[in-house]
Amino acid sequence: MIKAGIIGATGYAGGELVRILLGHKNVEIKWFGSRSYIDKKYAEVYQNMFEIVEDTCLDDNLNELAKQVDVIFTATPQGYLSSILTEDILKQVKIVDLSADYRIKDVATYEKWYKIEHKSPQFIEEAVYGLCEVNREKVKGARLVANPGCYTTCSILTAYPLVKEGLIDPDTLIIDAKSGTSGAGRGAKVPNLYCEVNENIKAYGVTTHRHTPEIEEQLGYAAGKEIVVNFTPHLVPMNRGILATEYASLNKVKQSDGSMDYPTYEQIKAAYDKYYADEKFVRVLPKDVCPETKWVEGSNYVDVNFKIDERTHRVIMMGALDNLVKGAAGQAVQNMNLLFGEKESEGLELVPMFP
Amino acid sequence: MIKAGIIGATGYAGGELVRILLGHKNVEIKWFGSRSYIDKKYAEVYQNMFEIVEDTCLDDNLNELAKQVDVIFTATPQGYLSSILTEDILKQVKIVDLSADYRIKDVATYEKWYKIEHKSPQFIEEAVYGLCEVNREKVKGARLVANPGCYTTCSILTAYPLVKEGLIDPDTLIIDAKSGTSGAGRGAKVPNLYCEVNENIKAYGVTTHRHTPEIEEQLGYAAGKEIVVNFTPHLVPMNRGILATEYASLNKVKQSDGSMDYPTYEQIKAAYDKYYADEKFVRVLPKDVCPETKWVEGSNYVDVNFKIDERTHRVIMMGALDNLVKGAAGQAVQNMNLLFGEKESEGLELVPMFP
Amino acid sequence: MIKAGIIGATGYAGGELVRILLGHKNVEIKWFGSRSYIDKKYAEVYQNMFEIVEDTCLDDNLNELAKQVDVIFTATPQGYLSSILTEDILKQVKIVDLSADYRIKDVATYEKWYKIEHKSPQFIEEAVYGLCEVNREKVKGARLVANPGCYTTCSILTAYPLVKEGLIDPDTLIIDAKSGTSGAGRGAKVPNLYCEVNENIKAYGVTTHRHTPEIEEQLGYAAGKEIVVNFTPHLVPMNRGILATEYASLNKVKQSDGSMDYPTYEQIKAAYDKYYADEKFVRVLPKDVCPETKWVEGSNYVDVNFKIDERTHRVIMMGALDNLVKGAAGQAVQNMNLLFGEKESEGLELVPMFP
Amino acid sequence: MIKAGIIGATGYAGGELVRILLGHKNVEIKWFGSRSYIDKKYAEVYQNMFEIVEDTCLDDNLNELAKQVDVIFTATPQGYLSSILTEDILKQVKIVDLSADYRIKDVATYEKWYKIEHKSPQFIEEAVYGLCEVNREKVKGARLVANPGCYTTCSILTAYPLVKEGLIDPDTLIIDAKSGTSGAGRGAKVPNLYCEVNENIKAYGVTTHRHTPEIEEQLGYAAGKEIVVNFTPHLVPMNRGILATEYASLNKVKQSDGSMDYPTYEQIKAAYDKYYADEKFVRVLPKDVCPETKWVEGSNYVDVNFKIDERTHRVIMMGALDNLVKGAAGQAVQNMNLLFGEKESEGLELVPMFP
Repeated sequence: MIKAGIIGATGYAGGELVRILLGHKNVEIKWFGSRSYIDKKYAEVYQNMFEIVEDTCLDDNLNELAKQVDVIFTATPQGYLSSILTEDILKQVKIVDLSADYRIKDVATYEKWYKIEHKSPQFIEEAVYGLCEVNREKVKGARLVANPGCYTTCSILTAYPLVKEGLIDPDTLIIDAKSGTSGAGRGAKVPNLYCEVNENIKAYGVTTHRHTPEIEEQLGYAAGKEIVVNFTPHLVPMNRGILATEYASLNKVKQSDGSMDYPTYEQIKAAYDKYYADEKFVRVLPKDVCPETKWVEGSNYVDVNFKIDERTHRVIMMGALDNLVKGAAGQAVQNMNLLFGEKESEGLELVPMFP
Repeated sequence: MIKAGIIGATGYAGGELVRILLGHKNVEIKWFGSRSYIDKKYAEVYQNMFEIVEDTCLDDNLNELAKQVDVIFTATPQGYLSSILTEDILKQVKIVDLSADYRIKDVATYEKWYKIEHKSPQFIEEAVYGLCEVNREKVKGARLVANPGCYTTCSILTAYPLVKEGLIDPDTLIIDAKSGTSGAGRGAKVPNLYCEVNENIKAYGVTTHRHTPEIEEQLGYAAGKEIVVNFTPHLVPMNRGILATEYASLNKVKQSDGSMDYPTYEQIKAAYDKYYADEKFVRVLPKDVCPETKWVEGSNYVDVNFKIDERTHRVIMMGALDNLVKGAAGQAVQNMNLLFGEKESEGLELVPMFP
Repeated sequence: MIKAGIIGATGYAGGELVRILLGHKNVEIKWFGSRSYIDKKYAEVYQNMFEIVEDTCLDDNLNELAKQVDVIFTATPQGYLSSILTEDILKQVKIVDLSADYRIKDVATYEKWYKIEHKSPQFIEEAVYGLCEVNREKVKGARLVANPGCYTTCSILTAYPLVKEGLIDPDTLIIDAKSGTSGAGRGAKVPNLYCEVNENIKAYGVTTHRHTPEIEEQLGYAAGKEIVVNFTPHLVPMNRGILATEYASLNKVKQSDGSMDYPTYEQIKAAYDKYYADEKFVRVLPKDVCPETKWVEGSNYVDVNFKIDERTHRVIMMGALDNLVKGAAGQAVQNMNLLFGEKESEGLELVPMFP
Repeated sequence: MIKAGIIGATGYAGGELVRILLGHKNVEIKWFGSRSYIDKKYAEVYQNMFEIVEDTCLDDNLNELAKQVDVIFTATPQGYLSSILTEDILKQVKIVDLSADYRIKDVATYEKWYKIEHKSPQFIEEAVYGLCEVNREKVKGARLVANPGCYTTCSILTAYPLVKEGLIDPDTLIIDAKSGTSGAGRGAKVPNLYCEVNENIKAYGVTTHRHTPEIEEQLGYAAGKEIVVNFTPHLVPMNRGILATEYASLNKVKQSDGSMDYPTYEQIKAAYDKYYADEKFVRVLPKDVCPETKWVEGSNYVDVNFKIDERTHRVIMMGALDNLVKGAAGQAVQNMNLLFGEKESEGLELVPMFP
């Protein structure tokens, strides 16, 4: 059995980690860390766990925890893990970090977008960006996995094959993303009250959202050059789900007769299939079927598809996932499976719940 | 492997049966019956099943189906199964009927409330009312299980121990129930449109709802006499969940000093514990904690609790379940497990999803 | 022009007062009081008021305010007004208090249910309970109007004619009420977060909700004796609206042939019509049509109806209103109209918004 | 008094017309036309109108209606009005058409996108596109006003000043729009059921939505040339509201020192102010404040704002309106006011309702 500890177990992502790990046959949760609820029974914080989890919330002592478990999940605010992580800890335990602390390779970029000083930049280089479908092999040997952001996972996987294959001009990429409200966390703030979110939609963080540089870095690797994109998130009145609608200009590519022309449906579909045909958790939908967040709710799937606009020579790409599963806890468990040589989908064969 | 067929696989309860059975290690679904979608791929009707279910919808030929499977789930309109069921079929296959056709022992009562002529009353007597926590042993030997209604399961289990133990006067029982919209089915009707249900709550079927006689019959058995109750359902703007708030006058009972007095918290709690302490799927919550539908969503749990009103000598009982799971498909699978000697909770250890 | 001041203008009820008063042709709002947002533009707190309200939030100095305006609306926490109200203020200005401070005539009852010491009990006697349909004439001459609670207005008006006419036994009255989330106010608390309320329904304050004694006092006046009732509120995932479903045993009444029997539909309907036929804001719906909160949204209407259960000899009464309008700000303006000799419906002829 | 008739009075837009016209002091609704509900009382179809509207639904006889009223609103399916409109009718009555029949000047474009043969192209030329803020003077003299679409009104007004002033390259314009569900109408269809829409977001009509050519035509006039845009609508789980998020590349413009450079915040703000400073119903929000649909709910406002992305030299424009008011019935009444010399805002001074 893999012994797991969770720091930040009482946030929404932490709660989802518990839900998923309870269904994993080779994992035992040994530590429910929560600064806000120390000494309170976990099932009093999350009543769904009544008679399922008997444990009490503990503090967030990483050094102590490192001695007791095999893997630590940190579902904590930005800047927390980086302020306490040490080489000594990393020698004892694997860490899957759900915060952004080690996602961005360039410290200056991190500090600029997050407005936080990075306290342990010495670990950035070795941290592996845990987008399993892209970095599977690297993850397997890592000590420290930077679990991708929710918007980022959706945004990258939706566009990745077309960027990688040169079918679109990445500098024309515009990502219009929509998220359910659990992405905002469980903190008590007026803008997240029921009456403020319900019957409402708005954009926020326009041009300044912190997932932007993460998307740019990863898609930049795929493009083989630095890129800048527009990323605009929106808050949607629903609990779970992210939909990314992405727009980019198509590049002309070499056709079978030697001419250069815009790629056809089949050519773009082939690009998606090249990268995702064997990926269990990425489903390329049939022609003309649009991804919907409801169809992946509660599961680790990302549904993707695209539509060519012949009039503007742009392609509209769409991707949908559950922000708490593939966008957070599910992907974290997928990374853990890779780290420990488990079957990659163990504990993650969750059938989406409808309605 | 138990071979299962579903008639009515494309309704909401049918879809939930598919979701649950996919996670059952000893069941294989052999037949996805749907009159509305014959020859259409199941995953085109329920896109969440894309790349999970490859089957195509078939017709609803019960005779043919009986030859191919071990158990048939009928998630069909009232009057359907009773119009086609034969002794020959029952000799070949076990049936778990999610409709109301065999729930009520008195044909006249059925016909009065449902306004349908019952076409096969000869099977009513042998049909077992599949409320597992109450009728577990009878279910095990049945050929035909009448799976209880969603409101009924919630209403009965919430009050059962107090009725059975004589702690309340069953003729004072008033059940005010609230349900999410999936209980109304997937039929296209104006009152079920998003804009009609959203931001709205209403009572419906006041004094006439068909689950009333079912509740009365079952609680009557517990009371040892015929009873009549008030049952009022309400439509709530949410997908899943039923909450029953039940009111009844307390009976004075013998106290340890020989006097007669209203029961205490401890006495009522003891009654709940007597029936539910060993029941995996009924959770009696800690004192003063009210059941909420969200805490059982996606799971087979019923959460119950109660509060004494010292001023009126009434008890307010509350119960919450997921209408598609414990209120329909989950309980159907629980019955199937009993029928086939499976572990009763096999496939049903679903952790509630929050948020 | 009536000059009005609002203390607590940035809560949900305060915001609704602003919306309604802006449409009143004889009122000018002179003071937007808000301790939380002093010196902030009102339209920055409520962006819907951009380019409509140019004022800035002021403090809550009641003495100063009394000199400047003709009427003060206090939409403040319990205990606030009673701690600062003086005879001097009441000599200068009319007050419509949306809090509970002067609703209950018995100080001990107030202090028991609210767990607050009442600081100015000397004004309780003269305060008029502002349920316009019942106390219209008394309101006209008042200095201090205690504006009824949201649940209370709905609960009382739904049952009032039957209690008053002796058609039901008031001691059997059970009120199961359901409210949208704006009733919980704009305070930032975890239980009111979008993800906690959405897709959920729960009872709360069972046997202890503070609107209970208010209902009992007012219906007690109608019954001509002290009564106790069960009142159970529920939180519903919607912004606005209260639905009260009320149960009571019918009394036998004298029939035209001299016999005693349970009242007929016509007799009960006649009781409702007796009190409400001339009431603009109470709509007695046609037979068998149930009130729905959506049909009164944004308006000052209360929709009521009832259904007799011949089997249990109980009547199920139902009432629906918008908690922020007839349940708070609308009724407050209705009271103001009475206080100042305005047409009672001035500013309140709001057509419900659907969908 | 202006006598008005409504054809299609029982759809959502028709219902909203009734709500708004009831508050217009110089209009009397004489005809509630509804093919689906002929001879049914209007208040039985829309229960919010109980005791407010006493009329009965009538047929849709346009010739008869033309004799009785001064203005006809047609809130009917595409192709309906164009199949029955005659010169004789237009000589008797003004028409405000909420359908798309006369919005597009080029018949071939209409027929291509709507897949309907246009039956009365002879009236297209004289029809005035009723976007009041742009075509105010033309509307005043019209007989036939083509009331703009909901998405279109939002999309055009959000980008209009920047297109008109040449600050953006219109061929780079990408419009990502999000709409509440009332835009889908009151027809009973599975995809519009509560359980299908709730907790879900999806794109639809990608590259094929019929509002595309309408946007292109109108913004083409502003640009002074033909343009093509990407327009992608999304369905959001809420009743009302449209948010358009629009992306375009900035053009370099002449600066005060004679150089060419990208426009500053102030320059773009000045463009919005040039067109909207005097427009009552278009509110240009303060810097960095994003439009939200909730803040305009129930009102005729369009809230707009923008943000410059210095990194990509694009501007993100945002606009929000209530699809049933400024996006349909409110704008129709605004057009009627222009046609009859009423104050343009008469009946439309609706304060947005929050929450």
